Amino acid sequence: MRIAILLYPGFTTLDAIGPYETLRHLPGAETSFVAERPGPVANDSGKPALVAAASLADVPHPDIIVVPGGPQENLPLAHGPVLDWLKEADRTSTWTTSVCTGSLILGAAGLLTGRRATSHWLYLKDLAAYGVDPTGERVVTDGKYVTAAGVSSGIDMGLTLVGRMEGDRAAQSVQLMIEYDPQPPYDAGSPDKAPADLVAEWRKIRDREEGVTPSR
Amino acid sequence: MRIAILLYPGFTTLDAIGPYETLRHLPGAETSFVAERPGPVANDSGKPALVAAASLADVPHPDIIVVPGGPQENLPLAHGPVLDWLKEADRTSTWTTSVCTGSLILGAAGLLTGRRATSHWLYLKDLAAYGVDPTGERVVTDGKYVTAAGVSSGIDMGLTLVGRMEGDRAAQSVQLMIEYDPQPPYDAGSPDKAPADLVAEWRKIRDREEGVTPSR
Repeated sequence: MRIAILLYPGFTTLDAIGPYETLRHLPGAETSFVAERPGPVANDSGKPALVAAASLADVPHPDIIVVPGGPQENLPLAHGPVLDWLKEADRTSTWTTSVCTGSLILGAAGLLTGRRATSHWLYLKDLAAYGVDPTGERVVTDGKYVTAAGVSSGIDMGLTLVGRMEGDRAAQSVQLMIEYDPQPPYDAGSPDKAPADLVAEWRKIRDREEGVTPSR
Repeated sequence: MRIAILLYPGFTTLDAIGPYETLRHLPGAETSFVAERPGPVANDSGKPALVAAASLADVPHPDIIVVPGGPQENLPLAHGPVLDWLKEADRTSTWTTSVCTGSLILGAAGLLTGRRATSHWLYLKDLAAYGVDPTGERVVTDGKYVTAAGVSSGIDMGLTLVGRMEGDRAAQSVQLMIEYDPQPPYDAGSPDKAPADLVAEWRKIRDREEGVTPSR
């Protein structure tokens, strides 16, 4: 079983690594980071971060496609090699998945039209522009499309998919071994739970369409 | 403020990326992956994964040191360049931290003697061999040493440290933007919560000292 995790310049690292660290333990999984060209790919810090082992052309028909997100200005949303590969690979994939704003890339490829999907909470509106029914849920499965909310939610998405494919025990085994027993020191991980003025501040930054990063 | 995340052949990727994705948003943070030599470093899959931007010699005095873990046989526990760097860097660090079996590396460097610390649940006993008081807690702070439990706990550790350094609001802001509102589909992330026979199975594998990985 071939798993392809797409990398492109400016992706967010944890978006890619949450699914990586869960899905790679599927029996028989051959997991690769793929990009237009093999080699180091810069993440959203601008520095080379993860290494693509294969080019898009090397992995035309993965069984599972994972599309991480990144700051909106970095997303490959225009016609080009990434969207071409994605559309073609999706024709034969068993599962096509995304984390965070990765769902906007699926949307731009026309793969989510008329479907329910999720994204980073600040970008649900943008998802609607692709004819998608956006939901604030953390993991959304609609047919073979599994989308996850912001950055860290790829861990939940990966465990969900392992459970769907290999059963509860396999997923529990992965959860136990990555010791995913979350105990965040705050309860501020969603716009419903974070202090309202903090949420408002981020929405304002977003609406001004400035670069959105948690650096203050 | 200089943050150095140590890479060595065979590290576990999420161990490094949880702290990376939280700590890098500290004001003025300059976050680097560091390794014996700059360039791609293989993770626990054996394939080149993350790229070290700097050599250990390039970053002798980071303010924050992050030591990820990996399968035990991959850990640099013997006298050598990594432990030499770690001991020296720790003399001037503000915080010295680890995720998962990374605490065994801190232990081997003699940095945790007589202190409370944590590790991956399967390796707490090994931690005790370094004169450490092992605890099953998810994040343990003892002086300037902050250790985290298995793999995914580096996210909780990073948020804890951001809160300690920059206050609750800064940490909540990071949590909101990485949308860390965990909703794992199972409640099996610790040995207290996972099915008892699954925990026993893993302990048996561990006691036979076979390679421990969630791949079944």
